[in-house]
This record gives sequence, structure tokens and C-alpha cells, in this order.
Amino acid sequence: MLNEFKSQKDKELIADWDALSRIFIRPENKATRATLVKYMEQILFGLHSFLNKNVGITQEISLKKLSEQFTDTHLNKHPEKKLKDVISCLIENIAPHAVNVASPYFIGHMTSAIPFFMVHLKTIVSALNQNVVKLETSKVVSVIEKQVLAKIHRLIYSNTDMFYQDHVQNTVSSLGVFTEGGTTANLSALWVARNQLLKPIPGFEGVEIDGIAKAYAAHGLDECFILVSKRGHYSLRKAAGVLGIGNKHVIPIDVNLKHQIELTHLMNTINEIKRNPRKAIIAVIGIAGTTETGSVDPLRQIGEICHQHHIYFHVDAAWGGPTLMSEKYRHLLDGISLADSVTIDCHKQFYMPMSCGMVYFKDPYFMNAIEYHSNYVNRMGSVDLGIKSLAGSREAHSLILDCAIKIMGTKGYALLIDYGIELAKKFAQEIEKRKHFRLITSPELNILTYQVCPESLQLALLNTTVEEKKQINATINELNRSVQRIQRESGKSFVSRTVLTAHRFQDGFVDDVVVLRCVLMNPMTTITIINDILNEQEAIFHQLQHERTDPCTLVKEN
Amino acid sequence: MLNEFKSQKDKELIADWDALSRIFIRPENKATRATLVKYMEQILFGLHSFLNKNVGITQEISLKKLSEQFTDTHLNKHPEKKLKDVISCLIENIAPHAVNVASPYFIGHMTSAIPFFMVHLKTIVSALNQNVVKLETSKVVSVIEKQVLAKIHRLIYSNTDMFYQDHVQNTVSSLGVFTEGGTTANLSALWVARNQLLKPIPGFEGVEIDGIAKAYAAHGLDECFILVSKRGHYSLRKAAGVLGIGNKHVIPIDVNLKHQIELTHLMNTINEIKRNPRKAIIAVIGIAGTTETGSVDPLRQIGEICHQHHIYFHVDAAWGGPTLMSEKYRHLLDGISLADSVTIDCHKQFYMPMSCGMVYFKDPYFMNAIEYHSNYVNRMGSVDLGIKSLAGSREAHSLILDCAIKIMGTKGYALLIDYGIELAKKFAQEIEKRKHFRLITSPELNILTYQVCPESLQLALLNTTVEEKKQINATINELNRSVQRIQRESGKSFVSRTVLTAHRFQDGFVDDVVVLRCVLMNPMTTITIINDILNEQEAIFHQLQHERTDPCTLVKEN
Repeated sequence: MLNEFKSQKDKELIADWDALSRIFIRPENKATRATLVKYMEQILFGLHSFLNKNVGITQEISLKKLSEQFTDTHLNKHPEKKLKDVISCLIENIAPHAVNVASPYFIGHMTSAIPFFMVHLKTIVSALNQNVVKLETSKVVSVIEKQVLAKIHRLIYSNTDMFYQDHVQNTVSSLGVFTEGGTTANLSALWVARNQLLKPIPGFEGVEIDGIAKAYAAHGLDECFILVSKRGHYSLRKAAGVLGIGNKHVIPIDVNLKHQIELTHLMNTINEIKRNPRKAIIAVIGIAGTTETGSVDPLRQIGEICHQHHIYFHVDAAWGGPTLMSEKYRHLLDGISLADSVTIDCHKQFYMPMSCGMVYFKDPYFMNAIEYHSNYVNRMGSVDLGIKSLAGSREAHSLILDCAIKIMGTKGYALLIDYGIELAKKFAQEIEKRKHFRLITSPELNILTYQVCPESLQLALLNTTVEEKKQINATINELNRSVQRIQRESGKSFVSRTVLTAHRFQDGFVDDVVVLRCVLMNPMTTITIINDILNEQEAIFHQLQHERTDPCTLVKEN
Repeated sequence: MLNEFKSQKDKELIADWDALSRIFIRPENKATRATLVKYMEQILFGLHSFLNKNVGITQEISLKKLSEQFTDTHLNKHPEKKLKDVISCLIENIAPHAVNVASPYFIGHMTSAIPFFMVHLKTIVSALNQNVVKLETSKVVSVIEKQVLAKIHRLIYSNTDMFYQDHVQNTVSSLGVFTEGGTTANLSALWVARNQLLKPIPGFEGVEIDGIAKAYAAHGLDECFILVSKRGHYSLRKAAGVLGIGNKHVIPIDVNLKHQIELTHLMNTINEIKRNPRKAIIAVIGIAGTTETGSVDPLRQIGEICHQHHIYFHVDAAWGGPTLMSEKYRHLLDGISLADSVTIDCHKQFYMPMSCGMVYFKDPYFMNAIEYHSNYVNRMGSVDLGIKSLAGSREAHSLILDCAIKIMGTKGYALLIDYGIELAKKFAQEIEKRKHFRLITSPELNILTYQVCPESLQLALLNTTVEEKKQINATINELNRSVQRIQRESGKSFVSRTVLTAHRFQDGFVDDVVVLRCVLMNPMTTITIINDILNEQEAIFHQLQHERTDPCTLVKEN
């Protein structure tokens, strides 16, 4: 069979069958073996030296200029490059225009440095190339996945030994599932919650089979709602859209000054909905680490309210979940064990490479509400993990998490968590010391928001009319947009910005505020680096002030 | 800050801050550098020698015994193992119980060997750790993703240069999106299709905002349907369940003897639904490579029917899509360019590591129907790829595909595709030569199904009553379950089995048939290996026959 293709003789690249075959056989002779290992060295260390050289975010090239270089849309028929040239090109030409998320000066997002062994673990997973949709393409890896899920379930719910003995390798029950990320983890949880509420009743086979329209008719409903604070992640609205509930039925509940859900508003909303028998609540969501401010909702109280009203309680702990490993700070998540389901991201504070999420269920049979079978895989009674999962074919992320925990211990993770929270507190103190800065949200976990805010404007805000306050606030907002953009473009450091909608000030004044947002998860970020970043922002502010006297006009739209 | 942790002195593992810091810094001294590279060598070649030693599927240990070893559900507080021990353990203890999907004797599923350079590419992506949800954590990688999407879009739709110039780097339009796999690609397509049909009209903001119940009321509908052949992938039912349409509204259309959709049945079903103004069709789906039989639906005809009736046309080419790169066989997918959307999997016939899918849209503005924004990312008008995507944070799979195509050329891929299709044809010929085998579905692409079927029973099936046919068929089904199980457990080779529901025989007799199913995608699989596999099956059959004379009783339930 192989001979058929041997006539073609373009030896250079993979244009004939011979060359093609070689790429499927890992070479056994010393020279080629050494070459392949050298490529790995190039990847591990060549990229690293780029990362060291470019402490900032990216080389200064505008997005427009950059994208102009990537407009050829023809597929190459013949091979263009050898592996080594592809690797060199990635390291020399692409990496410098990627974002150095590993820089300790990159503190704007939830993507950061990862321990270098994670790259090794990811490499193993890809070399094994198991597909955990079914046992026949994963075997032991499916078994390990169930074990890891039980370990993290235990971290959240602390059930009895007996409980975990029963369920760890149980082929009928499921303690949770790995997902592509927090978005699909939240979607999976709300999918289960929707199906729990709109369950089968006589004459109706359940929402999964019959659909939402018939479900509402059968259950005598017009509308169903999901309740979450104003700081809820946008994936929750998306999930409601996908699930056919409609994203306007995600009701944003007010937050207090600490950006935690207002329990009174929550209870009033629940009571108002319940007064109408044609309305129902699919789930109330508590957040353990809001994306924008790192705030943690009062989980225990929300759990108790949900219990009292028989409402499904989901906790979005995509960010904050791993705090449970810190003996010092796990109390911040008190009450999480009351949740019917919990989302945690692995590529966030488990420091795994992109991208991996998880969702856990208190009741090991809840996921039966989303069970799917087929004739060739996921047959009834099989151990196939694909039976209860939004995704089909899936990478064995669980193996990475399992190994990472073995290497780090929960104590290793706790050191990282504690460092981040305490660094954030010191960061806040630095801001309070500086007269042209204002802290907007104190860090509860390791996220904080603040503004560059000239002392004069801070004073002006105090005693004036609401109308003038709005105007001053707008000026401050513009100023912060400018400072963030200029700092980002200068390429040394990166903080992000967001808008806290309807932010309530101490004096009761409410308006949208543009804030600078920092996420302290990189253990290489020190207070010295933070001061560098603040100094740069202050210098940009003074430069802007110097250029234009009226701060209202100093800003170019970004 | 660092000093606070220095008092703890468990030097061995990552129990103190010093040790912890080191895992974030790639070491620069020669010795440690050499160690890290050695680990990579261990991964690349240690795993490989396992793969060579274990030609079969796994070592013989029962699932029960295996899972008994993975029942400890306590998280270790202190580190358990060093990286090198974790790697050794994975290679020595875990890999032998994983599934050797790379074996040329593993021809049962769509997971197979991958070119070894894919592991290098995956390593690069994980070392860069870009998050393509937003430009601020990916920059050039987002730009490359748009370019790759345009290239594959062109492969499917062959639009004009002008079209691709307009859209390749357009920040408002989208030619497609990368997903976790085919399941979420199909879900994304049907999400768009649902939102297209149940679009905003006066007094109604669209299904995404208002939900399905209100959408049906506004559009005057009771039920919506999705039409796909009986061979449709189970992800389509799952998508209908998730999207609130209800999976019973996925109507299975009959197939012909070649397991392609019956156009008459399709048209009749469309007409019947359209006669009722309170019913509508969300999408008709054509399949380019059914999971079970590799059949390709008559895409052009389906496309024309959809065009005529103004129905959204989706093609599930998760398996068959890359056939478009073969000049010899791309005609099999004729008409795919009529599709409103197309699913293609990268971890299938693009030979990428687990897991990655893609979905493409003919109209670059269709994806606006699933657009989401937030205050801190995915702002209006930004280039952030997360605006139109089911997932949030995402790995930069696109970089792997881009590099792989550069290394292979479409011609390299075409060699693989052609080889698989032609090997499948020879496989079919081998089956036809053997008197105790029966070919059930001839390969259209590189998938075929067959049965071990004693000559006597084949003859007996020909001229008898329907009742007796059913009984004989049941016997054959049991026999094939046994053969597949025994072969799998003996560990040398693996073919899968499935049930073709309501399979129509040549003589018009209809019943469920249990078949052996083979997927020919590994270029290391030769006709000699296939004969080994068939010989083993024949030997198992004779052994079974020898043990029990009555084939009806020879079978133990699997």
C-alpha cells in the first residue's frame, strides 16, 4: 500500500507518502531524537527568553498594522515550512506580538503566569491524546477523572467518607464534570437547574424532551427567572439565552457598598415573583469572587433563603473556588456547601493552562437530568463520561489537575492564594496613601478597583448638587479611560478597566464609574512592581494635566 | 513579602514560598535546564516506547479492579511527588492502563494517531497561554485565528477574493468560531438557526432576550422542528434539548440503503410541517460523514430543497469536512457550499490533539444573533473573539491548525484522506471474500460496518418468514456483541460496535442490526493489519462455535 505513493519525490517537505509516514512515527535514531528534543528546548526556553526580554505587554505595533499582515486567505497546497521553521517563526515573529500574560506587570486580567511544570503536564496529555467522552478511548483516565472530581467535591461539600466511597467510582452517579471553562460550567449548572424545575409530570415528558413552550404550559407558567447580583458574570445571561429562558429573565439584584448582593432586594424579588403563580425561579446564583471586584456574596444567607423557598442555589466560584484550599481565607466562602451546584475554573486559580472549567453538584443524581445516550458510545450503564456532559469529545484536563495537586499540595496553592489576597491589601494601602488616587473597591479576595482621581475633584464631589456630581464623575471616568489606554499602549504594564454600573458612593450618590481593575494572582508581582505601575499612572496623569488644563477636554475616545 | 514564608523549611517539595517561586521561574542554570529538557524527552520517547510495547488497547486489568485503585478522595495537603516522579508515574503506571489510540490496530473510533509535531505545537500554545476570549490576552493570536477561519471558510465556500478581503480581519463580521468540539459546534450552529427563525418582530425582542415561550407566542407557533437523518449524531438531539426546543422535535428522517437521507421522506416531512401554520422548521441538517457509517447525504439536493422552502441548512461535516482538501474525493461533498453553516472537527481528520471543533457561517453577519458584551471585555466594536462564542476563555487552538496546515499543506492532508478511503475499499473487498462475514455498509468515506455472519445463517435469512428472520437476526446480533467484546478484552486490536436502528436489508426486511464498525484514519494501518484483525475475529467465531453448537446460546450479555 505504501508503495503506491512512493513515486512522488518532493523530499523536502511532507509532499509524499514517505515523508507523511515519518510524521506519524517518532524517530528512534539518535540524531532525529536529539532534534525533536532540541525543538522542545527551543519551545521551553526560547519562548522564555522572549518573555524575559519583553516585560511589557507587546511590542508596539498597532492592531491595524498587525492585522494587515494576516490577510492572505489561500490555503497552501504544498507544505510551506518545516517544523523547526514553524517553531522559530512562532518564537521570533509571533510571540513578540502575543501578550505576555506571564509578566508580573500584567495584572489586568485573570490570565497570568502558570508554573512551568504545567506545560510538561499539558504535553503529556496531548501525547497520550485520550478522549474522555468514552471509556474505550480513555480507560484509566476516565477513572482518574472521577477520582479528581470526588476530591474537589469533598473540598466544597465535605461529605462523609461513606458518601465518597459510594460515589467516587459509581457508574450511575456523577459528582461533577469538566468543561471548556467557567461559561460552559455555568451553562451546565443552569441546564440542570432548568430541567429540575421543568421536570416531567403526568402528560409531560420534561423540558429536555418536550421543550420550553410545552414545559411552561404543563407547569402553568408564563415566565421563569434567574436571580443574580448586578456583578454576575455575562456568561449567566448567555446561558439563559442559550437555554431558551431568555436573557432578560436574568434579574440583576442590587449590590451593597462592598458589591455583594443585597439580601433585602433578593428576598423582595423572590417574594414578588412567588406572589404570581404563573412565575417561577429556576435558580438563585451567589458569586464567590465577582469578575470585576472579587467580591463574595453572603453565600450562607443566600443558601438559607433558597432552602426556605425551595429554590435551586448555584454558586459561581469560577474565580474564588480555590480559596477553599487556604486555611486562612476559606471562611470567606462560608456557606458554599449549601449550593446545589458550584462552578470552579481550573485555568484561573488552579493555575492550569487555557482552558478548563468544572461544575460540581451536591446531589450525585442531579446530572441525570441531562443524560444522553447513543448506539456506539455512551450506552446505558456504561462508565462513559460523555453521557452527562455538554461537550462530546474532550481532552483529559483532569489528569493535569490531578498531577498539579500532587506536585503542589493544597498548601502550595494556599500559599499562592494567601499571597494574592495580602498583596491586594497592601496595594489598597498604597492607593489610600496617594492623594490623586481613590480606592473604589477594597479587596475581599485578590481583586481591587480604583481610580486616578485628582484631589481637587475628590473634594469637589463631596459637597455639590447631583447634577454637578454627574459632570465631575464623567470627567473622572474620561480621565481613567485615558490613563489606562496610554499605559497599555506604552507597553510596560497592564491593568484593565471596567465600568461598575450604578455604583453607589458612600454618600448615596449613584452613577456609573470607570475604574482601573487589578487581579493579583502572579506570585512574581511584588509591592515594588505595584508601585512602579502606580507611579507610571500618576506620571501619565500629570502629563495629561500638563498638556491640557481642562481635564474635561483632555481625553480622546478609546 | 517573600520573606514571610521563608521560615518554613521543607526543602524537598513545594511547601514553602521559595520552592513555590521557583516553579514560576524557568531556571536559567544549565543543570536545571537540562533536567527540564530531559523530562520532555521522557514524555516524548518514554510514552512512545510504551506505545510500541503495547500494540493492543490496554493491559488486561478489569475496569473494576482498576477503579478500586482510585478511590481515595482526600486532597493531599503537602506535596506528594516531584515533577519527575509524576512524569515517571504517568509513563510507568498510568499510560499502560490508558488506551493506545495511536496503535494501527485501534481502528474502532475517530480518535487515532496524530503526527508527532502536534505535540510540539500544543506545547507552544500552552507555554504562551494566550486566552482568545479577548484581544488584551491574545493580540496577534486573535488576528491569526480570524485568518485561519477565513482560509477554512474559503475551502468550504470558495467566495471571491473581494469577499475574503472584506471579512478576514473585519471586526464586525465573523466567518466562524472555534469550539471545544463538534458537539458545541453543532450547538452553536443551531443556536444561530433558532435565533434566525425566532427573530425580533414588533413587540418582541427576539428569542435570545425574551425566551422561547414568548417567541412562540409572538411568531404564532406551537412547535419548532429540526430535521436530520436517522444517522444524525446524538449531539443534535442534545442541542435541541439545551436550546429549549425539546429533543423530541428533532425528527429522524429515513435513510436509503446507503444510509443517506431519503429525500422523499424529507420533502414529505417538510410539506406536512408547513401545512400547519403553527409549526415551523428551525433547520434541516445534512451529514457529511455519519458517525456510524461514514455516509454522506446528498448535500446539493438538500440545499436546494432548503433554498426553495427558505429553511436554514446546516451541514454536520465534523468527520468528513477535511475531505474537501482531497482533489480526488472532494466531489463527495458537492453542495456543501449551499449550507448556512458547517461543522468541522479539528481533532478528527485535521489530526489535531483533543479537543477542537469549528463552525462556519455562510453569511458573515449570522453570528450577530448570538452576540454578548460585558463591561470589562468584549466591549462593543472591539476585536474580542469572545463576543460571539458559546465559550468564554478559550485556548488558542487556531494556532495549531494554522501551523499544521503550513507543515502538511492541503496535499499532505489529502494523502491521508485518500489513503483512508482507499484502504476502506480494500477492507470491504476482504470482507466480501470471507464467507463468514457480511458487509453491512460499503465505505463512502473511510468508515465501514460489517458483521461476523455464518454462511449458514446468511442463507437461512434469504428465504423465510419475517418472524424467523427476526430470530436469526437476533442470533447474529448476539454473536457480534460477543466477538467484539472478546477481541477487545484480548487486547490486541479494537473495532467498535454499534446498532444501526431500523436497518433496511436489500430484500426490504427491516430490523436493528449490531455491526462491527471500523474507522480507517491511521496511515500506519495496512491491509495486512486489517487481515490480522479479521483473522482474529474469525478465530473467535470458530472458538465460540466450537464451545457451543447452538449459536443462539453462545452469547454472554455485554
